Amino acid sequence: MKGLWLENQQLQFRDNLPVPEPPKDEVRVRVLRAGICNTDLELIRGYYPYKGILGHEFVGIIEQGPEEFINQRVVGEINASCGDCWFCRTGQPTHCENRTVLGIVNRNGAFADYLTLPLKNLHLVPENVATDAATFTEPVAAALEIQQQISIQPNQKVLVVGDGKLGQLIAQTLALTGCDLLAIGRHREKLENLEKRGIKTGFSDAVKPKTFDIAVECTGNPSGFELAHQALRPRGILVLKSTYAGKLTFDASALVVDEITLIGSRCGPFAPALELLAENKIDVESLIQARYPLSEGLEAFNHAQQKGVMKILLEMS
Amino acid sequence: MKGLWLENQQLQFRDNLPVPEPPKDEVRVRVLRAGICNTDLELIRGYYPYKGILGHEFVGIIEQGPEEFINQRVVGEINASCGDCWFCRTGQPTHCENRTVLGIVNRNGAFADYLTLPLKNLHLVPENVATDAATFTEPVAAALEIQQQISIQPNQKVLVVGDGKLGQLIAQTLALTGCDLLAIGRHREKLENLEKRGIKTGFSDAVKPKTFDIAVECTGNPSGFELAHQALRPRGILVLKSTYAGKLTFDASALVVDEITLIGSRCGPFAPALELLAENKIDVESLIQARYPLSEGLEAFNHAQQKGVMKILLEMS
Ligand SMILES: [Zn+2]
Ligand SMILES: [Zn+2]
Ligand SMILES: [Zn+2]
Ligand SMILES: [Zn+2]
Repeated sequence: MKGLWLENQQLQFRDNLPVPEPPKDEVRVRVLRAGICNTDLELIRGYYPYKGILGHEFVGIIEQGPEEFINQRVVGEINASCGDCWFCRTGQPTHCENRTVLGIVNRNGAFADYLTLPLKNLHLVPENVATDAATFTEPVAAALEIQQQISIQPNQKVLVVGDGKLGQLIAQTLALTGCDLLAIGRHREKLENLEKRGIKTGFSDAVKPKTFDIAVECTGNPSGFELAHQALRPRGILVLKSTYAGKLTFDASALVVDEITLIGSRCGPFAPALELLAENKIDVESLIQARYPLSEGLEAFNHAQQKGVMKILLEMS
Repeated sequence: MKGLWLENQQLQFRDNLPVPEPPKDEVRVRVLRAGICNTDLELIRGYYPYKGILGHEFVGIIEQGPEEFINQRVVGEINASCGDCWFCRTGQPTHCENRTVLGIVNRNGAFADYLTLPLKNLHLVPENVATDAATFTEPVAAALEIQQQISIQPNQKVLVVGDGKLGQLIAQTLALTGCDLLAIGRHREKLENLEKRGIKTGFSDAVKPKTFDIAVECTGNPSGFELAHQALRPRGILVLKSTYAGKLTFDASALVVDEITLIGSRCGPFAPALELLAENKIDVESLIQARYPLSEGLEAFNHAQQKGVMKILLEMS
């Protein structure tokens, strides 16, 4: 089969990869569509060691597995858990000590004709959710993780820093809480996308220091972190929603004096993400920048690596 | 009156300071005893700008104020709040936007014969609490702030990093929760002090990575922070209990992947601190390194600045 293979920070297109045989409790999925995410770009840059097929945002069709699931359209949670460790037993499978992660940790990913995942990881895609839209289930779920971790009240002032792919999804999901939301970015046209949906936006100078209850950092760069930190009132909450290249330096004394809480936030719940997509409460169409066939995957990555580019989709056939 | 005056990072002994007149709603306290804290040393090093009489840990006698309080022995909360801002109105006076802080922000401190504070800041010292012991009320309250911010369960594994003055008080207060506690330090004799009270201790090699639910960083240095971070299981909580010289650098991606929570923690509640001291549940006597009369305050500071020194007390007369 065809696939995009990462090895020694080199992404290669291969057309002679073996079609995977699903192990016990897993099923084989024929991939229909997949999305390129910043994590993929970071893996290529070598921030984490990974060798194998890349990709973790996908929609596919179950091709081999229990009869009743054959030919169903599905999306899949990316952490394959052991079911046995303390985290699994306490309902935190995304932190399973023995997990593999689709296209990220010890498990071939979605930028290929086929993948395998445990059946329990898969969610049926509601009929009225287009395949393009369903490709966003994983990042929408990641956005919703914030609301799993902290409660957000309608009277709270919430700041989103970053108008990229993830920042836009986070702003949209937070707006649904009815909180007093401001999204900050550097690109007028991206911010307009949010404005159209009734979300207040601005450049960094629109942030009044020490006035926000919650700030969500989605830029992955130190100046975004700094802006988010300075925006917070004492006892405010800073949610770190992106990974960082290398180490991050910050004013820890200010964090202590103001008793700020900093929370790292990663993978989230798929079911409510699919629901929001089915109810059309999240616009993802406007985030799609371009589509490439899998065979032009390397061109797709070249495009995705350019500054300011939104979601690039890969189409399998 | 006599006092220790800080100006341009120079600490001076002065014997011609004016005895302060208490403004409206404040009372004058004759200081009996005061403790030198790391924050005092940091102020001298210029980490925060401050000019005035230093000192915020004290016990004194009300000398001028409402009749019924005259001659009462008191300790005092160090944040003098406006009563009017959002933080004051929501019961968070330690974060008052207009606060002054005894010996730290725009308010003359306790290393003097007299100080003034709002009456509402003062707490009567129970008769059975010695003046020496009561001097520790403020740092014991700061230790208890952790339990105001997060709930600690008996089955949780908790790590305290640092065996200095504050670390010892924090280990003692955490031990009272019945949690599974380990205190880490670099000084065998200091750790023995905790061992005597039934607290498990060790050097840094006793910390098994990714096994603690909660870690409290009390060293104020980056290696202590690193140790605390590495000790935490995914979704663990790192409490930052000390201020840092300059900026702190850390692995933000690891914090995101493991969804770690980082909480800054500062001033805490005086009433339960006094209760613990009255019930003799906290040993502070063993933390006292030396006593100096106020007139030898500069020698006292020379002593306090030496590495590994515990609490230095100043005695007024
Ligand atoms: Zn992703
Ligand atoms: Zn597991
Ligand atoms: Zn102090
Ligand atoms: Zn106030």
